[in-house]
Amino acid sequence: MKFEIKDRDASGRICKYKTNHGTVTTPTILPVINPNKMIISPKEMKNLFGTEIVISNSYIIYKDKKLKNKALEKGVHNLIDFNGSIMTDSGTFQSYVYGDIKIDPFEIVEFQRDIGSDIGTILDVFSLPDQKKSEVEQIVKETVNRAKKSVELKGNMALACTVQGSIFPEIREKCAKQLSKLDSDFFPIGGVVPLMENQRYADLVRCIIYSKKGLDPSKPVHLFGAGHPLIFPLAVALGCDFFDSSAYAKYANDERFLFPWGTEKLDNLNELPCTCPICSKYSISELSKLDKKNKTIEIAKHNLYITYNELKKIRNAISNGSLWDLVERRANSNPYLLEALNEIKKRENKEYLEKNEPSCRKKALFYTGSHTIHRPEIYRIHNRLIERYEEPFKTTIVFPEGRKPYYAYYSEKIKKIFKKNCKVNILIDSHIGPVPLELDEMYPFAQSVFPEKTDKETEDYITTKFDEYAKNKNLISWKGAETLKDLESNNRESIDFDILRLKAISDIQFGKGAGSVLLNGKIRIVKSKKTRKIRNVYCNNKHILSMRAEDGLFTLKIDGANMLHHHFKYPKLRVVVDDDAVEFVKDGKSVFSKFVIDCDSDLRPFDECLIVDKKDELIAVGRCLLNRIEMLSFNYGMAVKTREHIK
Amino acid sequence: MKFEIKDRDASGRICKYKTNHGTVTTPTILPVINPNKMIISPKEMKNLFGTEIVISNSYIIYKDKKLKNKALEKGVHNLIDFNGSIMTDSGTFQSYVYGDIKIDPFEIVEFQRDIGSDIGTILDVFSLPDQKKSEVEQIVKETVNRAKKSVELKGNMALACTVQGSIFPEIREKCAKQLSKLDSDFFPIGGVVPLMENQRYADLVRCIIYSKKGLDPSKPVHLFGAGHPLIFPLAVALGCDFFDSSAYAKYANDERFLFPWGTEKLDNLNELPCTCPICSKYSISELSKLDKKNKTIEIAKHNLYITYNELKKIRNAISNGSLWDLVERRANSNPYLLEALNEIKKRENKEYLEKNEPSCRKKALFYTGSHTIHRPEIYRIHNRLIERYEEPFKTTIVFPEGRKPYYAYYSEKIKKIFKKNCKVNILIDSHIGPVPLELDEMYPFAQSVFPEKTDKETEDYITTKFDEYAKNKNLISWKGAETLKDLESNNRESIDFDILRLKAISDIQFGKGAGSVLLNGKIRIVKSKKTRKIRNVYCNNKHILSMRAEDGLFTLKIDGANMLHHHFKYPKLRVVVDDDAVEFVKDGKSVFSKFVIDCDSDLRPFDECLIVDKKDELIAVGRCLLNRIEMLSFNYGMAVKTREHIK
Repeated sequence: MKFEIKDRDASGRICKYKTNHGTVTTPTILPVINPNKMIISPKEMKNLFGTEIVISNSYIIYKDKKLKNKALEKGVHNLIDFNGSIMTDSGTFQSYVYGDIKIDPFEIVEFQRDIGSDIGTILDVFSLPDQKKSEVEQIVKETVNRAKKSVELKGNMALACTVQGSIFPEIREKCAKQLSKLDSDFFPIGGVVPLMENQRYADLVRCIIYSKKGLDPSKPVHLFGAGHPLIFPLAVALGCDFFDSSAYAKYANDERFLFPWGTEKLDNLNELPCTCPICSKYSISELSKLDKKNKTIEIAKHNLYITYNELKKIRNAISNGSLWDLVERRANSNPYLLEALNEIKKRENKEYLEKNEPSCRKKALFYTGSHTIHRPEIYRIHNRLIERYEEPFKTTIVFPEGRKPYYAYYSEKIKKIFKKNCKVNILIDSHIGPVPLELDEMYPFAQSVFPEKTDKETEDYITTKFDEYAKNKNLISWKGAETLKDLESNNRESIDFDILRLKAISDIQFGKGAGSVLLNGKIRIVKSKKTRKIRNVYCNNKHILSMRAEDGLFTLKIDGANMLHHHFKYPKLRVVVDDDAVEFVKDGKSVFSKFVIDCDSDLRPFDECLIVDKKDELIAVGRCLLNRIEMLSFNYGMAVKTREHIK
Repeated sequence: MKFEIKDRDASGRICKYKTNHGTVTTPTILPVINPNKMIISPKEMKNLFGTEIVISNSYIIYKDKKLKNKALEKGVHNLIDFNGSIMTDSGTFQSYVYGDIKIDPFEIVEFQRDIGSDIGTILDVFSLPDQKKSEVEQIVKETVNRAKKSVELKGNMALACTVQGSIFPEIREKCAKQLSKLDSDFFPIGGVVPLMENQRYADLVRCIIYSKKGLDPSKPVHLFGAGHPLIFPLAVALGCDFFDSSAYAKYANDERFLFPWGTEKLDNLNELPCTCPICSKYSISELSKLDKKNKTIEIAKHNLYITYNELKKIRNAISNGSLWDLVERRANSNPYLLEALNEIKKRENKEYLEKNEPSCRKKALFYTGSHTIHRPEIYRIHNRLIERYEEPFKTTIVFPEGRKPYYAYYSEKIKKIFKKNCKVNILIDSHIGPVPLELDEMYPFAQSVFPEKTDKETEDYITTKFDEYAKNKNLISWKGAETLKDLESNNRESIDFDILRLKAISDIQFGKGAGSVLLNGKIRIVKSKKTRKIRNVYCNNKHILSMRAEDGLFTLKIDGANMLHHHFKYPKLRVVVDDDAVEFVKDGKSVFSKFVIDCDSDLRPFDECLIVDKKDELIAVGRCLLNRIEMLSFNYGMAVKTREHIK
């Protein structure tokens, strides 16, 4: 089953997943189809919502003699009259709802295979949120054992092996690791419905993160039983690819309308606050007057319009780099969801999420409240400032935050400093933390929008970060021209701020020391005539760097890559490709995951990288789409987009 | 022109406004119709979006000889082919955009009248955000002078007199007051486009609040030039009824899609994240391929679908009491809008907004972030606790916040306290502030959803509020059973918590001392068999109070009203009606604003009130829909819904 990443943001991803019955674009939802009562047929769903995949329950089919025989004879696609992809569930959820069910765990896998399910599911054991650790450990052991035997029976069917482990993070992670070692194709995160029913979203976040930590990142992840769009943005941002649910129908049956921000009962609405074809077709009184059956169908359609539309919004947010904005915006509509975001403040979770976080974005970062400052990308830049950035001089003048870009805003004062050749650093005490002036045009410093006054929590956090940065540094506050008196310098050597800028960005982007390496020679800078911003950088007449207008970061040219390759030891910045791929890459072709042998673990999605062969010969320079563990796990799709190769 | 309030929330309201061409439901938008280039005709708008009112520009019509003659001959409704309500603007905005325009300020009013505009606008003078105070004062003086003369020319047309005053709150308020004294029918808030263009939403909030403070509350208020739905929820919550804009068309011309959370350019979208009929009809590539004209029309339609839908959401939020939730949710999508909410933290603004704030709601209050705690209703309850609530005993035990309802959550501990007849108060240190246990079922204490951990700012604010409350009180923290040791009591009189509860709620709801008055006799309490909550209260066999299940507040019965009427001096809790209305009210009819002579200034929308005649004879009890200043200003609509009258 081909599964490949096409685009990404946060720990979320847009993927293509190929089944025996077509290709599915994720993140998406699998509407639950009950073969006994379809209120909207899968065929109609395909027409109305572009549904590519649905889920049905093999246990229900198996238990009904008529359905069973028809499914065995003509296949499940015929049974529910759908030629797209079909996943089947196994009865585990029924065991949760109705208690013990009588079915052999392997027979149900074989049955799913025999009726032609595209993705079948093992009969895992449901772990409850209030179970004891020892019980949960037993459940996971049994689940893994069943998975082990089940993979041998799967045949041509993709097999979904469900991660259990209740709310114990370490058991989730262990279960995920064990399942990932098997020949499984698809990973539902199970046992989470009771958490969602009780709005225990913080527990849910932990379950997802720890399951994801243990899982093979090259396989799809399915949040089992999640059907309310409220949870989608956060779940996708944590790495879930699939959702499923009968919520659209269940809620419709109760005359409840799903919305991205929650649920509204028909009775409580005076108008239909929605533009979907159903809500455009009826007035509220017309809809209320429909008979029960038709009302349910129409509300179910509304629910699916909203559900699929939220997925579109999520995919758009991934493409334009605003998924965290969407997550925070949605979380603001539910206090429990907002609370769940507190999980992301935890260091261990930030550390995990940071590895998947792209290194640049098309859109500016928007402050939405006290959670914004805890985004993994901000965590990263604070760390990188301390790890990678070196202040050029001994003394630092601190300016309060002015308007952006800071250099232009403070230009008069800066001119005074430069005129006297004062050897001082300039640091901005900004809402996002300390910003060395050299980095003022770089993402996310320039490309972030904070209000003039944030909230107390953000202010406190930033103060801590500022203090961490300031430790052992000689900082003085700008107090007008007299600040300079003490710093008067006889130094005749003038300061070339452009060079400082190039060095600082290089160090942050490629690692400490990168700036000195790249700028070791005669430097020529070409600026944009219009914006006066740096565009291209030449060292000894070789074009080594270009600066991107949108994020103020560099694209690395092959000559620059060569300099970094000489200086930095293996595996720093490298992606190592198999011999089979070398000629292709030299031909300008991109690097596919299956040809990656190794990779620098510090590389992040969208980072610039050096493509080398097994002997560490530089063959090209490109842009990563995956991080190390992904490159080593994925069998399909691009790992590095090659930009320039050695001639 | 009839204008009446039908429903309300925050300082926002749903009104019916009757013009010469029909009735308009507000809040709504007036799409700008340029008679020279209609990309969507008003007639089509009516079909597609239910458009009831549009705005056109009389200056443009006046300047074009052909249009002018046609308008004068056949009327503006014929000119733009629309039989709904039409407002006309006067050219003021053109003077802002293009500099001085040559037109006589009174001729243009007469012209609007003569072409049959339903609402014409004076030619006010546009004040800019960066103008000096003295200049702005001159502008306002000239604007008011023009308004004075214009009202004499208006004839059968409603006349809109625009509030100017740049960003000077006191000038805005003064201008508004002066205009309110004239015979004007409609109040645009003008000069705000430059603020919106630069996302200076905090300035905008001040302009709206101070204009509203000075304006006659019984007239519609129009935020001139506001067309992006992003600003609607906040502007409505501050009391704006109308918006207008060409944004739908201008943005469409740039291939930009309006959304409630911002704007997206067609180029940046991979999918159309919207369910409207336009976005359901086209794929993104199909839409991209349309010719310029058709593409603009289709995007303009999308923009209007979204705009009208946001207004539906706002009206629904008003009806179900969740307008602040919506405001905060929307603000979270734009840092500048979020910052504008800081204005609401200011005491003078809270004080103003609190007067319009309903005293109860259908929906629970949802925490959305650091702004929630500053809602006017929370400001009110903190004040009322200090002003109206009296602790029954000398010592108070403080419990940390447990689950709601607190009484049930702490029942074991409370039983211990009661068993020993300890005379102590119990206070919960909750996320919303101090909550005396007697009030634990009352709105907003029970009906609010806060996460387990809020944000630092909220925590600090609540600590301050707790300290204010605790001042001069003897508070001890609950430290298990030993807390009780020091409080052991030989008092044989047992505590009747239900009575304490009734007293506390009465005091908070009706004023200090109300509880003692109402409970002065033999009390019988009837509880719900199912929930065991108090339902009805009898004193000396008279039914005096009923408790509402949804908000834990009382509805006042006529016998209870009588007791309060005897005790509290005029005008406390009273609404005084004119002699003409007395018989109608005695007949059970509701009180209409025009018959209200006076009213207690402490009454708030949805408060229980005593309806009295001029001699202060109690004639009925009811529920206010308006506050004092509104009752005295409105000529139309209901002021008090009568519930029970003296027999």
